[in-house]
Amino acid sequence: MEKPWGGRFKKSTHKLVENFTPSISFDKRLYRQDIEGSVAHAKMLAKTGIITEEEAELIIKGLDEIQEEIKTGKFEFKHELEDIHMNIEKRLIEKIGPVGGKLHTARSRNDQVTLDVHLYLKEEIDSVLELIVDLQKAIISLAEKNVETIMPGYTHLQRAQPISFAHHIMAYYYMLERDYGRLVDCYKRTDMMPLGAGALAGTSLPIDRKMTARLLGFSSIYENSIDAVSDRDFIMEFLSAAAILMTHLSRLGEELVLWSSAEFNFIEIDDGFATGSSIMPQKKNPDVAELVRGKSGRVFGNLMALLAVMKSLPLAYHSDMQEDKERLFDTVDTVKACLAVLSPMLITLKVNSENMRQAAEKGFTNATDVADYLVKKGVPFRKAHEIVGKMVLECIEKNKSLSELTIEEFKSLSPLIEEDIYNEISIKKCVESRNSCGGTSFENVRKNISRAKENIISKQKPLL
Amino acid sequence: MEKPWGGRFKKSTHKLVENFTPSISFDKRLYRQDIEGSVAHAKMLAKTGIITEEEAELIIKGLDEIQEEIKTGKFEFKHELEDIHMNIEKRLIEKIGPVGGKLHTARSRNDQVTLDVHLYLKEEIDSVLELIVDLQKAIISLAEKNVETIMPGYTHLQRAQPISFAHHIMAYYYMLERDYGRLVDCYKRTDMMPLGAGALAGTSLPIDRKMTARLLGFSSIYENSIDAVSDRDFIMEFLSAAAILMTHLSRLGEELVLWSSAEFNFIEIDDGFATGSSIMPQKKNPDVAELVRGKSGRVFGNLMALLAVMKSLPLAYHSDMQEDKERLFDTVDTVKACLAVLSPMLITLKVNSENMRQAAEKGFTNATDVADYLVKKGVPFRKAHEIVGKMVLECIEKNKSLSELTIEEFKSLSPLIEEDIYNEISIKKCVESRNSCGGTSFENVRKNISRAKENIISKQKPLL
Amino acid sequence: MEKPWGGRFKKSTHKLVENFTPSISFDKRLYRQDIEGSVAHAKMLAKTGIITEEEAELIIKGLDEIQEEIKTGKFEFKHELEDIHMNIEKRLIEKIGPVGGKLHTARSRNDQVTLDVHLYLKEEIDSVLELIVDLQKAIISLAEKNVETIMPGYTHLQRAQPISFAHHIMAYYYMLERDYGRLVDCYKRTDMMPLGAGALAGTSLPIDRKMTARLLGFSSIYENSIDAVSDRDFIMEFLSAAAILMTHLSRLGEELVLWSSAEFNFIEIDDGFATGSSIMPQKKNPDVAELVRGKSGRVFGNLMALLAVMKSLPLAYHSDMQEDKERLFDTVDTVKACLAVLSPMLITLKVNSENMRQAAEKGFTNATDVADYLVKKGVPFRKAHEIVGKMVLECIEKNKSLSELTIEEFKSLSPLIEEDIYNEISIKKCVESRNSCGGTSFENVRKNISRAKENIISKQKPLL
Amino acid sequence: MEKPWGGRFKKSTHKLVENFTPSISFDKRLYRQDIEGSVAHAKMLAKTGIITEEEAELIIKGLDEIQEEIKTGKFEFKHELEDIHMNIEKRLIEKIGPVGGKLHTARSRNDQVTLDVHLYLKEEIDSVLELIVDLQKAIISLAEKNVETIMPGYTHLQRAQPISFAHHIMAYYYMLERDYGRLVDCYKRTDMMPLGAGALAGTSLPIDRKMTARLLGFSSIYENSIDAVSDRDFIMEFLSAAAILMTHLSRLGEELVLWSSAEFNFIEIDDGFATGSSIMPQKKNPDVAELVRGKSGRVFGNLMALLAVMKSLPLAYHSDMQEDKERLFDTVDTVKACLAVLSPMLITLKVNSENMRQAAEKGFTNATDVADYLVKKGVPFRKAHEIVGKMVLECIEKNKSLSELTIEEFKSLSPLIEEDIYNEISIKKCVESRNSCGGTSFENVRKNISRAKENIISKQKPLL
Repeated sequence: MEKPWGGRFKKSTHKLVENFTPSISFDKRLYRQDIEGSVAHAKMLAKTGIITEEEAELIIKGLDEIQEEIKTGKFEFKHELEDIHMNIEKRLIEKIGPVGGKLHTARSRNDQVTLDVHLYLKEEIDSVLELIVDLQKAIISLAEKNVETIMPGYTHLQRAQPISFAHHIMAYYYMLERDYGRLVDCYKRTDMMPLGAGALAGTSLPIDRKMTARLLGFSSIYENSIDAVSDRDFIMEFLSAAAILMTHLSRLGEELVLWSSAEFNFIEIDDGFATGSSIMPQKKNPDVAELVRGKSGRVFGNLMALLAVMKSLPLAYHSDMQEDKERLFDTVDTVKACLAVLSPMLITLKVNSENMRQAAEKGFTNATDVADYLVKKGVPFRKAHEIVGKMVLECIEKNKSLSELTIEEFKSLSPLIEEDIYNEISIKKCVESRNSCGGTSFENVRKNISRAKENIISKQKPLL
Repeated sequence: MEKPWGGRFKKSTHKLVENFTPSISFDKRLYRQDIEGSVAHAKMLAKTGIITEEEAELIIKGLDEIQEEIKTGKFEFKHELEDIHMNIEKRLIEKIGPVGGKLHTARSRNDQVTLDVHLYLKEEIDSVLELIVDLQKAIISLAEKNVETIMPGYTHLQRAQPISFAHHIMAYYYMLERDYGRLVDCYKRTDMMPLGAGALAGTSLPIDRKMTARLLGFSSIYENSIDAVSDRDFIMEFLSAAAILMTHLSRLGEELVLWSSAEFNFIEIDDGFATGSSIMPQKKNPDVAELVRGKSGRVFGNLMALLAVMKSLPLAYHSDMQEDKERLFDTVDTVKACLAVLSPMLITLKVNSENMRQAAEKGFTNATDVADYLVKKGVPFRKAHEIVGKMVLECIEKNKSLSELTIEEFKSLSPLIEEDIYNEISIKKCVESRNSCGGTSFENVRKNISRAKENIISKQKPLL
Repeated sequence: MEKPWGGRFKKSTHKLVENFTPSISFDKRLYRQDIEGSVAHAKMLAKTGIITEEEAELIIKGLDEIQEEIKTGKFEFKHELEDIHMNIEKRLIEKIGPVGGKLHTARSRNDQVTLDVHLYLKEEIDSVLELIVDLQKAIISLAEKNVETIMPGYTHLQRAQPISFAHHIMAYYYMLERDYGRLVDCYKRTDMMPLGAGALAGTSLPIDRKMTARLLGFSSIYENSIDAVSDRDFIMEFLSAAAILMTHLSRLGEELVLWSSAEFNFIEIDDGFATGSSIMPQKKNPDVAELVRGKSGRVFGNLMALLAVMKSLPLAYHSDMQEDKERLFDTVDTVKACLAVLSPMLITLKVNSENMRQAAEKGFTNATDVADYLVKKGVPFRKAHEIVGKMVLECIEKNKSLSELTIEEFKSLSPLIEEDIYNEISIKKCVESRNSCGGTSFENVRKNISRAKENIISKQKPLL
Repeated sequence: MEKPWGGRFKKSTHKLVENFTPSISFDKRLYRQDIEGSVAHAKMLAKTGIITEEEAELIIKGLDEIQEEIKTGKFEFKHELEDIHMNIEKRLIEKIGPVGGKLHTARSRNDQVTLDVHLYLKEEIDSVLELIVDLQKAIISLAEKNVETIMPGYTHLQRAQPISFAHHIMAYYYMLERDYGRLVDCYKRTDMMPLGAGALAGTSLPIDRKMTARLLGFSSIYENSIDAVSDRDFIMEFLSAAAILMTHLSRLGEELVLWSSAEFNFIEIDDGFATGSSIMPQKKNPDVAELVRGKSGRVFGNLMALLAVMKSLPLAYHSDMQEDKERLFDTVDTVKACLAVLSPMLITLKVNSENMRQAAEKGFTNATDVADYLVKKGVPFRKAHEIVGKMVLECIEKNKSLSELTIEEFKSLSPLIEEDIYNEISIKKCVESRNSCGGTSFENVRKNISRAKENIISKQKPLL
């Protein structure tokens, strides 16, 4: 088949190349944005007198029909036409005749393709933001039910200090809050219209870019035509934000896997979110949590791929940049799927609060509190730390918990210790007493949950 | 040497471990921030009555002396003390006695280390922003001198359309403008104080985190203590922004290399920014531009490293996170060095405008303008494109440029062409006529430069 | 639909999970290997008496029919059945009744899936090796035609010394030779059979793994069942080898782009391997070379993704590892497509030898030869280098090449120079004289080409 | 200071560039290799008559003295001299006069620097191989002590089947065995001498590369001079092998962290390999295991960095390639440190075999064995799986283990079950019965350990 750019060529494209260079297999996903952009472009061309109103109407009607053809699966995508832009344009000319050829006036595929991706990504950032909020809601709901569920807080996967499970799970709320912020910031830089840059230098035709931007809902336009067609930093920024988000989700995935192990046994994942084994009849695997964890690697790889693609490319457009779309699509799909599946999974999670509590009782998680007790009696912290270290060693040898030491045993290590120690280092007291701002006390946690709920409500408006 | 946490241990640290776990070899770089944080912490402890004013004064005086010792190279860093925090604390106790041990009250290394990095990164983002502005100024200055310098614009490294060199180089100004924005956004999320989170759960002592934040110049504090010590997304975000910035610098580096090749010969790099060969006496190598280009890989690697480190870590702190600092320091150093060296290099660049112009005259860079000429006469763009394609083929065969075709030759391909074609497709006219918003016309370029200068002035205030 | 592992579950899988965990959308690609493995497994089960010969025959007949159904597109893949293994097993039971359920005896999906990938990758490494050899042949053929085509050799993209174009292009032959070696080495470690590891611990049934390995053409078997199902290093190694290969192809891509620029004009890419522009009628873009260059990023990303996935996973199998396949498939497809397209592209390349030669004549590429001339007269190299540096500076000022200096001018810089200098530094002489082993002299290049051809012949046998 | 290549330059190097381009800060680490290469080069130059024997002796004596100066810290490295090569050459000329300038005859920094790295990496691969063997020995020793230590084998971190702890830990032996193989293969491709390639084209002087290769202990030489100076695939291959190795070590690190958690409590890390907390007196953190795990990210990043650096570089040498060394050095140091610290850590590990066994008793790890029991009675595996699934569900409801079901309860689910079931599904029997090749039976494990020991002995010879 003849290429739309074939005038200057004497030989036809090699058959291996016909399978190598086209992007239609993946960029057809952008058909809606491509048509949306073309409709706005046609309206602008008519308004500025570059084409007539009648021509614009014909073109728009044709595009509407094509959109319907694609939606209903009747459109035949042709590999030889390389990409979604040419597939649509060729079909338009088929339908309405040579006037269809006027649509590409004052436009190049270079500015058209990046326009499509901007439109696509604006929508998708919005979807991701919604899914983040959904997950935040699920977290809040899980937290609300577990303010007084005490678990051991861990550092280095060693039991450290007793905490409220709600406090722990709310940490993810705050991470997601920053992810939300990163994506909103990324949206600002995505919300810029490249159309009108032409191949790279702008055009001599009297176009009105601001009108097109208005029609398409863009807040601003690229002020330099070469920059508009050469750069893909808005995509790299999205991939970065997605990669960081995925580090958060992978950590949650890891914790769900750990907590549902027989050893921790802190939670039970709902049957609907677990899978079995083809060979071991007893197995109930945290498959979903594992996949969320694993899929972070995929998103990191997509980011790394695009950074490497963009590195060292001279301006302006190069075909290397065609590699951006599959990386982006895969990232959007992955992030959305992970966020979507986690929300109902958290909501249906069964928390084994008794097991959590028992774990918190063991492991000397109140050792810091003994040290703090001594500090309050005037012992320098560093000295108190040393005393309690020895106390713990004695407990290990005697196979006792700290609360099980007799007052004499306490006193032999520090005469400052009194009977009130037992109350001070009860697990519940240890949690409740950490009421410094941001600390794990029940009151703090309740306050934070309530603030988080207000914040969620204020976000209900989409960006688009 | 005895460890500050040694109370609970019976054996001493293995000598291989003494060389494996400590971070002092690189985190000593944070001594200034560590002391700044400790001074604020001490003041807060005194204000809230956790320690006395006298104790605070003693501590602060001791810390001031230690800072002086480090600055003047008199401080002996000890490997066995693991990190900058313990090195300073131990020395403090040496100097002022057991009261020095009170400084670590209501604080853990977990919140202390991330505080130090927040303080460090806030400063460094500010420095990077300044260097970005400097480079933008250098670009503007180069652009101002070259508004009417015509060069071929390239796509696919093929000559595409004639453009103003100022327009081309200003594309980098706009990329840097978005880099600037990304870093300002990153700053917002860096400007949050983690101190007061303790090991992970907060503290039962009556600390005043807002006071400490105020003393240290933070705009906000982490609202969840577990999040505060577990997350490093502010560093990942900085590394991402740095990686994207480096794609921009690497592209500029690539272009400087290309342009200074004998084949392009568009520029001459100043002797001060080039190097020679140990064997080939004639060589003048664009070493600096190559290194800038190459160093992007390093920054990508740092980002990838930290993403992989953070992936799947359960909350809260793990020693894996100690790997963040070297990656961050190396990225800061690399980005600053690249930005710093490019500014004077661009300012001293010699532009071979005559060679640029000659290149623009060749290569049919005005072919689109012939097509646009036909469009203005009513030919659908797609048809016009085809006619000009054939025209170019004829030129190649006859070894002519488009302007060298006779009017009869033109007419034989399209009878609509008149004598005015010659004026319409002169290279200068081609540039000047692309006056759509964002296009390369001299007038547009001048306008953009002037707007850029105003923008630069408005940025003179540092964030800190 | 009921899950094959459903016995222990009370609730059915959540609908979001039905779309999240299954791998059938991509692992159906392994159907041939899966059936091949099952047939061998069934034969072994019969031979060892675990099932009867009749049962084995029934199973094998059923599998053969299923293979035909899949090949002819009649097989209905079911999402709810999760993966290719369960899809085939379920269909087998449908066809031959409960006896089909005996096929999974002494086997788990854990060893089955990695078996399939081993079988797949062995075949694909073989295909890649063949394509490497094809590309090496294309390089040799291009080299043979261009032994005496002189071009400037470049370092830092600056003209350095004159070389034979054949010598330059043969550098890629040697890189590919090492890629070949790396893949052969990777093949060794892929050619190990995991089957028989069961879920992770082996089996109590009297299986004969060596028989299965023999039937499937494996040279060795995994000696530790946990290792067999837990590790994916053979895939990581392939991705690494592919990534390194792609650095080589991307460099060739970059050079093809550079050389086909108007500035270099060293080659003309055949019309069949170039594409045009939708807007600029004159454009002929080296699209294929750009895409090859860009696709390296994709392969790097796939490698990075899998490294991140495998990092820190406890033994044995985890669902995270399901992420390996898409990364692998994409890499195999990408590498094969790039290799395949480059061979005919190189064979049809038009070399503009006259332009290459002219470029070599300029740029003082014979400066080192002047220095070597002085060395042969006894001047220490470092001193000779300095003298010639000054000579070059004088030439630049006088706008002369070195050969255009008069004998007096030469002598004024070094009295040792005689009339024979002119012959010594002619471009052709410069190439021919570099006859040290591995150097660019025509004779050397011819010898290397001839050795390379012999080597290629010796490789005609596939590994499989 | 005057540059050794300064002849052609009129201005001196900008002070920012003086700090930007030099590599001496890191490549001084190669001084020994650089001198070793120079000594061999000098001997060859003398043997071939390019310099006199006396000159060679003078040069070699000078180089020996310089080596001593560097070793004893008396050598002053100069930034302005850019790199180790020029620092040594300049000093040589200082010491022995202009004859020192003859050393660089028939050599360029381009072939010299890659020679140095080849020499360095050959040594370091050898060291890494030794450390791998040491770690394998530690694993074997740990395995030998624990053949009959039963633990639960895990998939998806769920208890799956009972296994021998020795079998589990030996999985790492086999991974390391493949790592060893990969490094030996990488060594082959590192063991090629680039020297004699000159700047890129070889030389016209009558050098004898084979003699130099012999003197330096290289098995082969690069056959194409351009390839010799342009490629860094031997480094990329090493980084890949290191990255894969680190996935293995990070998995071991993760398991050590898990196993030393209070929840698993399978092992106790020796005090010498754990660290404490600055705030929590009870803590004993698996710091070393965490750092090993985290450091994998660093190595991945180094690999990604170099791939990105090498991508798309035209031939031959570019300064970008200077970025290879820091990535390589950091990787070598990291891998060696991780391997070295793990060996004594494993040897001193305390295994809590009783806890392991108790965990194996729970969690229905013998469920597959019940299914296998049914299979042996003629039930198709898929049906048996379903029956046992229901059995497990009943057990969960009745809070029983499978062995605690009465014979009636068994029979109610499958009448084929007899009294012998109790013996068949005892945990020890479950392990012992998995005696298929590669399975976990004690006998198998003992056989594998003994084979591994023989294999280790056969490896005692270093490659160098």
